Amino acid sequence: MFSMIVQPRFVETDALGHINNTVLPQWFEQARTPIFKLFVPSMDPKDWTLILAKIEVEFVSELFYQFDVELRTYIERIGNSSCVIYQEAWQRGQLGAKGRATLVHFDHSSKKSVAIPDDIRAVLAEHPYSEEDS
Amino acid sequence: MFSMIVQPRFVETDALGHINNTVLPQWFEQARTPIFKLFVPSMDPKDWTLILAKIEVEFVSELFYQFDVELRTYIERIGNSSCVIYQEAWQRGQLGAKGRATLVHFDHSSKKSVAIPDDIRAVLAEHPYSEEDS
Amino acid sequence: MFSMIVQPRFVETDALGHINNTVLPQWFEQARTPIFKLFVPSMDPKDWTLILAKIEVEFVSELFYQFDVELRTYIERIGNSSCVIYQEAWQRGQLGAKGRATLVHFDHSSKKSVAIPDDIRAVLAEHPYSEEDS
Amino acid sequence: MFSMIVQPRFVETDALGHINNTVLPQWFEQARTPIFKLFVPSMDPKDWTLILAKIEVEFVSELFYQFDVELRTYIERIGNSSCVIYQEAWQRGQLGAKGRATLVHFDHSSKKSVAIPDDIRAVLAEHPYSEEDS
Repeated sequence: MFSMIVQPRFVETDALGHINNTVLPQWFEQARTPIFKLFVPSMDPKDWTLILAKIEVEFVSELFYQFDVELRTYIERIGNSSCVIYQEAWQRGQLGAKGRATLVHFDHSSKKSVAIPDDIRAVLAEHPYSEEDS
Repeated sequence: MFSMIVQPRFVETDALGHINNTVLPQWFEQARTPIFKLFVPSMDPKDWTLILAKIEVEFVSELFYQFDVELRTYIERIGNSSCVIYQEAWQRGQLGAKGRATLVHFDHSSKKSVAIPDDIRAVLAEHPYSEEDS
Repeated sequence: MFSMIVQPRFVETDALGHINNTVLPQWFEQARTPIFKLFVPSMDPKDWTLILAKIEVEFVSELFYQFDVELRTYIERIGNSSCVIYQEAWQRGQLGAKGRATLVHFDHSSKKSVAIPDDIRAVLAEHPYSEEDS
Repeated sequence: MFSMIVQPRFVETDALGHINNTVLPQWFEQARTPIFKLFVPSMDPKDWTLILAKIEVEFVSELFYQFDVELRTYIERIGNSSCVIYQEAWQRGQLGAKGRATLVHFDHSSKKSVAIPDDIRAVLAEHPYSEEDS
């Protein structure tokens, strides 16, 4: 599991008084940074070798401005060229949201998906998600 | 089907040269405005009676800054207190992304879901989605 | 004067119940689109020849979610390679915010500012701002 | 001086390959958190006693995705009910942007500005900005 703490921004609240739903995909994107670093060690966008195929977010309970949020990131499934990331947002001991993102290892010049190299695959496998975690 | 045209903002692009994936949930939220109006005729956030239970977005092809995007919004399923909205983003005749959002009719004071009234149900039913549409 | 209507997004509100202040720079950026088109007719980011040197925004009165906003854009000053854009956000007949942006005509390959061509200068001059406008 | 480290988000880049200009007001807002805490110890938006009167940002050099950014926040001027915050964004030893924000101590129920209490004034005075700092 990768863990990251995010301090909510005032701009991320909405008129209902809590964190707006469209913020979660942004937080989850940022919490995937350790995975980006595995695929793109330079972290330079010019070297990027990933695309996002799909995201989903389930909103479980309200998230608020004034408390830190812990983002937990797990690898749920590793395919040939893609992997499914499972993520959760926790605040004050409560699950606020959970989501999945399907990342594809991708060659932007040939516009083709590429098999995930074995060394990266091995590191990903160290961060598994199983139902018992949640 | 509800249709809305959005003109991409420069801030909505990212370093890969196209529209960032986290923008789609924002566009789709805005394209649900006609549905918000059905449930909250005043459109005043203080009168809000909806919450979002789930979103998902599938990224089909790149979306670019310099061309308008058409957002198409359909009602896929109407339950007792919730409904599933199906949405697509089109640019230059190509499907860029598609998504679903599960909205729940909700009483913020009692913190309980509420059955969708028949008159709203009838209007929603006029905007159905069927597989043949896409 | 260039005019553009923007329909506020729910995500653009904050917990104080109105439009968050950080949204104005995004709206004003989008309202400068006609000026971008003058300098970059293709509107392709790869052809971009502008950089932003400075922005300022003054918040005059609250802006709300449920009403359209008119963005008015004027050219306040045209220098050799830069120009100052003056902008206002109006809602229900009231001025909500006003701002300035200093744009520089710029060659991204040589990393140098470039004089504004006479034909563009002439079009800019057709949209002047004078104190009497406000 | 208050210091805060921000790790840029991919969504915060734009098609020119660097951090979009509209992101700076968001970062600077977040970096004013210690000042928010002085005025609103609960940090609950319902207790908020501040409004923003004005912001300005000067863009000095490009900011990039792959390196941390340090936000430095100083108090430049303390008036009767308002104060001017001066802020800078540094990346890899280089100044990327600098800005000012005018905050007003405000009573949202009476819609009136309120004098800054002496104890808060004393803490603010411990974080002065003078030209030699930059």
